[in-house]
Amino acid sequence: MSATARFAGLTPLLAPRSIAILGASNDATRIGGRPIAFMKAAGQFQGAIWPVNPNRTEVQGLPAYPSVAALPETPDAAIIAVPAALAEQAVEDLGARGTKAAVMFTAGFAEVDAAGEAAQARMVASARKHGMRLLGPNCLGVFDGRTGYYATFSSSFDSGWPVPGRIGIASQSGAYGTHLYTLARNRGIGASLCIMTGNEADVTVGECIGWLAENPEVDVIAAYIEGIREAPGLIAAFEAARAARKPIVMMKVGRSALGSAAAKSHTASIAGDDAVTEAVMAEFGVHRARTSEEMLDIAQTATRRIYPAGNTLGMITLSGGAGVLVSDVAEQLGLAMPPMPEQAQARLKGLVSFCAPRNPVDATAQVGNDLALLEPFYESVLRDGGYASVLGFFTMVASSRRWPSMLEVLNRVRARYPDRLHVLSAIAPAEVTRAMEADGWVCHEDPSRAVTAIAAMGRFGAAFAAPAPAPAPSVPPVSLPAATPSEAAAKQLLSAAGIACAPEAACADPAAAVAAAERFGFPVVMKILSPDILHKSEIGGVLLDVADAAAVRAGFATLLDRARAHAPTARIEGVLVAKQLKGGVECILGIHRDPVFGPIAMFGLGGVFVEVLKDVVFRRCPFGADVAETMIRSIRGFPLLDGARGRARADIKALAAMLARLSAFAVAAGPRLASVDLNPVFAMPEGQGAFAADAVVEVAP
Amino acid sequence: MSATARFAGLTPLLAPRSIAILGASNDATRIGGRPIAFMKAAGQFQGAIWPVNPNRTEVQGLPAYPSVAALPETPDAAIIAVPAALAEQAVEDLGARGTKAAVMFTAGFAEVDAAGEAAQARMVASARKHGMRLLGPNCLGVFDGRTGYYATFSSSFDSGWPVPGRIGIASQSGAYGTHLYTLARNRGIGASLCIMTGNEADVTVGECIGWLAENPEVDVIAAYIEGIREAPGLIAAFEAARAARKPIVMMKVGRSALGSAAAKSHTASIAGDDAVTEAVMAEFGVHRARTSEEMLDIAQTATRRIYPAGNTLGMITLSGGAGVLVSDVAEQLGLAMPPMPEQAQARLKGLVSFCAPRNPVDATAQVGNDLALLEPFYESVLRDGGYASVLGFFTMVASSRRWPSMLEVLNRVRARYPDRLHVLSAIAPAEVTRAMEADGWVCHEDPSRAVTAIAAMGRFGAAFAAPAPAPAPSVPPVSLPAATPSEAAAKQLLSAAGIACAPEAACADPAAAVAAAERFGFPVVMKILSPDILHKSEIGGVLLDVADAAAVRAGFATLLDRARAHAPTARIEGVLVAKQLKGGVECILGIHRDPVFGPIAMFGLGGVFVEVLKDVVFRRCPFGADVAETMIRSIRGFPLLDGARGRARADIKALAAMLARLSAFAVAAGPRLASVDLNPVFAMPEGQGAFAADAVVEVAP
Repeated sequence: MSATARFAGLTPLLAPRSIAILGASNDATRIGGRPIAFMKAAGQFQGAIWPVNPNRTEVQGLPAYPSVAALPETPDAAIIAVPAALAEQAVEDLGARGTKAAVMFTAGFAEVDAAGEAAQARMVASARKHGMRLLGPNCLGVFDGRTGYYATFSSSFDSGWPVPGRIGIASQSGAYGTHLYTLARNRGIGASLCIMTGNEADVTVGECIGWLAENPEVDVIAAYIEGIREAPGLIAAFEAARAARKPIVMMKVGRSALGSAAAKSHTASIAGDDAVTEAVMAEFGVHRARTSEEMLDIAQTATRRIYPAGNTLGMITLSGGAGVLVSDVAEQLGLAMPPMPEQAQARLKGLVSFCAPRNPVDATAQVGNDLALLEPFYESVLRDGGYASVLGFFTMVASSRRWPSMLEVLNRVRARYPDRLHVLSAIAPAEVTRAMEADGWVCHEDPSRAVTAIAAMGRFGAAFAAPAPAPAPSVPPVSLPAATPSEAAAKQLLSAAGIACAPEAACADPAAAVAAAERFGFPVVMKILSPDILHKSEIGGVLLDVADAAAVRAGFATLLDRARAHAPTARIEGVLVAKQLKGGVECILGIHRDPVFGPIAMFGLGGVFVEVLKDVVFRRCPFGADVAETMIRSIRGFPLLDGARGRARADIKALAAMLARLSAFAVAAGPRLASVDLNPVFAMPEGQGAFAADAVVEVAP
Repeated sequence: MSATARFAGLTPLLAPRSIAILGASNDATRIGGRPIAFMKAAGQFQGAIWPVNPNRTEVQGLPAYPSVAALPETPDAAIIAVPAALAEQAVEDLGARGTKAAVMFTAGFAEVDAAGEAAQARMVASARKHGMRLLGPNCLGVFDGRTGYYATFSSSFDSGWPVPGRIGIASQSGAYGTHLYTLARNRGIGASLCIMTGNEADVTVGECIGWLAENPEVDVIAAYIEGIREAPGLIAAFEAARAARKPIVMMKVGRSALGSAAAKSHTASIAGDDAVTEAVMAEFGVHRARTSEEMLDIAQTATRRIYPAGNTLGMITLSGGAGVLVSDVAEQLGLAMPPMPEQAQARLKGLVSFCAPRNPVDATAQVGNDLALLEPFYESVLRDGGYASVLGFFTMVASSRRWPSMLEVLNRVRARYPDRLHVLSAIAPAEVTRAMEADGWVCHEDPSRAVTAIAAMGRFGAAFAAPAPAPAPSVPPVSLPAATPSEAAAKQLLSAAGIACAPEAACADPAAAVAAAERFGFPVVMKILSPDILHKSEIGGVLLDVADAAAVRAGFATLLDRARAHAPTARIEGVLVAKQLKGGVECILGIHRDPVFGPIAMFGLGGVFVEVLKDVVFRRCPFGADVAETMIRSIRGFPLLDGARGRARADIKALAAMLARLSAFAVAAGPRLASVDLNPVFAMPEGQGAFAADAVVEVAP
């Protein structure tokens, strides 16, 4: 790890050269005894292990020290396993001694009550004063099966030691983190390193992800998160992982109202807004897994390090049934399964007349029975089909006596195409599957799970290969008023940032009105302009569809006549001429401030789309027009902007430019900007722009 | 099985007392050798096994017969494993001999080409002439691990024999059927019986499901389907299963365009319309599984035979993290997790002050360490919480040394609540998990999968407990014209069936117009009525919002004046008075004819909902108003009918009545009715009815 790495500060915590255990116990089943017992049993830890216990001179066969001050050297890290009442002093002692990191198992702080929260805050202050990082409190710690570092009291090792491997796990929940780790280990998936952050008083899961991203021993990161507490660490971690081409697979729970409530009752977590976290994950190509199984499937497949940016799937099967299923799943996930070239299909038909060679390539059972046919079929799918990923469905044939000789053929072909993702859907004894996986195959019994994992590799590849997004547009400095401005003032603020509001002009005489109308283009709307006439349409004070200069002049006279007739005493300032927005699609653009991620932009279509269907998309601000256009294209109702139902196609470029400018405005406006609502925005037909017809800019006091 | 059972005709096929093997081979690895080898090796088949082979007197140690005619008795069933060229004769020989059933492995028929299709049709005709049922051709056959009947050449048994159990599998795909069976067996899930229908020239998967529904040895049915070929068998099967309270878990593949194409290239399957098949499954409470894993999880859980109609989930966990995840999944699946009663929460807080007793009940790790606490916690969730289903999250604790004593406590409590569904999310060695399952627990490592299975039990319960739906409304006989009628004639046909079209009347004089308007209720629309004036609105020939009798009289005069002024020579027949449909919600009601399931009703909201969002629901015709209302309430846009965005709530009862009448009309109209489109239908505010404003009835020539 380079010295300039952003997250190198966690190295004493996550890979220390020496460790003290405060509250060290001679009893290997107690939380203060387990880490020592684990490190001794595993026997790999190269550093010093220093038990601290004022009542013993020896703990589990190791010399014990009465206090932190009495330690022979300053430890890189320390485990705090003392009762809550002693924890604050332990932090202070360690900090004073110059220890760089502490792992605090001790519970009873922010997760319990306000007094605990206050104590936790004091410990963090103490640690920071001394430049010490603190993992926890109320955490299950960290372990690294590769180095034999076990700063944890997890009971996972009752059933076995970590399987060496290149997946790193970071989890806020200790129980779920070790659950994942245990599932992985039982499946033979190598996940050596596992970090659990508990209360996150100091060290956050985001920073741990960042450290894993910078760790050359780790290729893939699996994370379990309930709520994000700080954005910069997480964003930097996501950036580091993407730069290093390391996929992140993440479960983010607490997405439901019920789940959020459960999260809040648990380890004092800020669940945050799930949709915003999801948007941030999508921004960086982080895969959101819905189940631990999906997470491990994808993490395991990712350890092959084949991430095809333009993923395609070819399938070879000995029976048609699974081909239908796989086609369904691939289509649902947007994974292309283009057909084999016609010539190749004809060639395969020449080998087995009743095969179905299109893709899925149903080679039929005959190919299972005649090994001489298997090689040309598999080869053809790779060579002629040219698919980035190939799935072979061999089901229980992989449990049969024929399998070793079939696998030999498949291996021979695979060796000729090492850049492809070779996946088998096969039912084989566990030891056979393990051997195939060790040999470079990806194996999934369930073809649906195989396709899900394959599709994820393509999305990782696309995220890694994506060009840097365009910069956000630059907007002039924004000077917010002291309080929420009027609509007119809001429109002025936005207009200054280049956000087009429906053009309108106050015109004192017919010539000015004609000039304004000609500037806007016809037709226009004309409205009587008087501070004394509030309900203009009731007195006939609004004219629509004013089509030319003559009509503007006539309209000016008509409006003044009507105003004088209905309200003889009203002050008449003239006429408001506005561009008539007709034939546009109503959209909603907005900004709200997320407590963690700051200003967040929203885009949706107006009316039922937002209010009934919640068909909206979010993105962290600021961003450029390319990102904005991707957002616009991602909503379900996009066809309405794209010419569905015989409409004109909307000016998507202008809409995207407005959304990008709004995102830059939100950042430029600073933290006092609470929200912006542009509702409706009219996306006019192509080439005619997009205009906010109404605007609210909410300013925090 | 009772003699009156609908599907008893398949008993000779699926549970024969004697079996002949045509094309019997002495080579136990060939398709004509495998069934004999399997039945001999398993050694359980109680009936006679008669190899037929003109070239041998003995096959695999059994006396062989030169021909069907030479058999000592008529076999109940026969396996046909002869080359395609001999298959037709084999069918004829067996039929002539009086054999009741044949399982045809032989391929090369409808799945290959037109000649094969013709040969297949001849075989079916021959079998039907003799009253013989035919499974296949091109099928992997059937086996029953309980009776030792192996009319299959599946290679599944290379890796083990069936696990006895009460799940029956029916699959169109042989490979996927045995894939499922093998996955089940490897997980220790008892699925003794497995039927694979191949080309379905005669026996369909629907009938097989029906036979399983009537079989007292089967509790749960798992089915894999690519396309349904005939409806009555499947519907009767679904009805039989529901009547017997046997859950059906079904994978229906070919839902995507790609999957459909793959299905069509495979075993000549008619993929049919996936949405229609899904609607039929929903009608009968059949669970549609998306993966084989989900299918087996649910089938296995269902073997507990606990199907709570009003399902609720209580969760007990030793850590909070999984509780958040489970809450998310439950909410997404609509599975209620009501909180524990306040008093019970207080009591649990009294036991462990820092526990989170709401639900999920996070008992904390302390309860894992102190067995005396586990019993009152688990008991309280069952007794005080009263949940129909309880999930315990014990993760790798179930792999620890503490587990046997913890399980003892859990078993003690479980025994007191035998009517509840007790589920464990636990990571334990396979043999421990098997033992717990044998003892009555449902075990899933993954909590998400556990919740999915629990939710499915509730849906089965709700389907079993649902009252019989209301009968479809009766409509008078429908006499369709020879060809597609005009809109007016279509509206007359529909009106006769009680489907309200926007009421309109041709009125020759003002008095008639007033009478019509008063009949319809105000306001009304008035339109000039003349065969010579096509574009009425262009000459001011349409009046909206005509609010009272005086206005009708005035309007009548105005319209006639305008008509005469603009078109002095036009023949004026009077004025059309129509109820003005305003303030209603636009809907679309339709009928189309599915090639398999006959007339299918569709309901959706007008505009973007149908065209862009595909927000529609389907149902087999006919049905009553209760079903129609459920359909209406099921679409995503339903809030628009239910008063969203400040609208009046729509007359859902009237809309449901119209939809039900339309379904009855579709059946009454008979097979010449190709389609009906009522678009738009205005669902008026509550109490004001629903009216079709436009109607197309398409009649097939």
